[in-house]
Amino acid sequence: MNNETAIKNRIANWAKAIIKRDWDGFLAWHHADFVMYDVVPPFQSVGLDAYRQTFVIFLETLQPGDHSFQVVDLQITAGDDVAFAFSPMKCRYFDKKEQRIIDLDFRLTIGLKKIDGEWWFIHEHHSVTA
Amino acid sequence: MNNETAIKNRIANWAKAIIKRDWDGFLAWHHADFVMYDVVPPFQSVGLDAYRQTFVIFLETLQPGDHSFQVVDLQITAGDDVAFAFSPMKCRYFDKKEQRIIDLDFRLTIGLKKIDGEWWFIHEHHSVTA
Repeated sequence: MNNETAIKNRIANWAKAIIKRDWDGFLAWHHADFVMYDVVPPFQSVGLDAYRQTFVIFLETLQPGDHSFQVVDLQITAGDDVAFAFSPMKCRYFDKKEQRIIDLDFRLTIGLKKIDGEWWFIHEHHSVTA
Repeated sequence: MNNETAIKNRIANWAKAIIKRDWDGFLAWHHADFVMYDVVPPFQSVGLDAYRQTFVIFLETLQPGDHSFQVVDLQITAGDDVAFAFSPMKCRYFDKKEQRIIDLDFRLTIGLKKIDGEWWFIHEHHSVTA
């Protein structure tokens, strides 16, 4: 499997884990040094506990049930041991507070590093325009 | 010069070009395939003309004179030919419309690729939290 395919699969599995509320899948390949810039505050989340907390905040917003989290058009630039990828994203969910369906288009950038033959997430940047 | 140092210099020179309103410096190492996700709309800017336009929009906001654009804490992950970097950013300027000084903290992620021995910007993601 080449690097692009391996990274594409990593990102697809991570997106599936979000849909399934699968904690282990969500965090499976995130490195201890991970830093996230998320759509909502805080300004940055450093480390895995902080990253897990962004998932908790997201899930608390949702009505339990169906939601989608779609990688629309992934572009991957991969070297032998460092890579980055970016894509427009579509997320659809029922917001408990607003009691309505939200269609959220956002932008995603991921930085990855290959360690001992496996690709790890080192950085994520999720955002909407101001 | 190692890859980390070369990339650090690239980013420092790009930030200086923004301060100096130096078009050539701003675009000097941005690849034709460049894609940007900016703080403000549009959702994405594809190609160099679209990227230049984000700079035009930014400059139109500013009162001519001093503004700052500071890379606060750059973290670089570089392979032999692909790299990514991210940093909190501080931008301070006088807003013409609001007639007051704006202190804008935002998040920056950059994806780079080495082509014929030179590091090129392939992707930038700038954002604030929603």
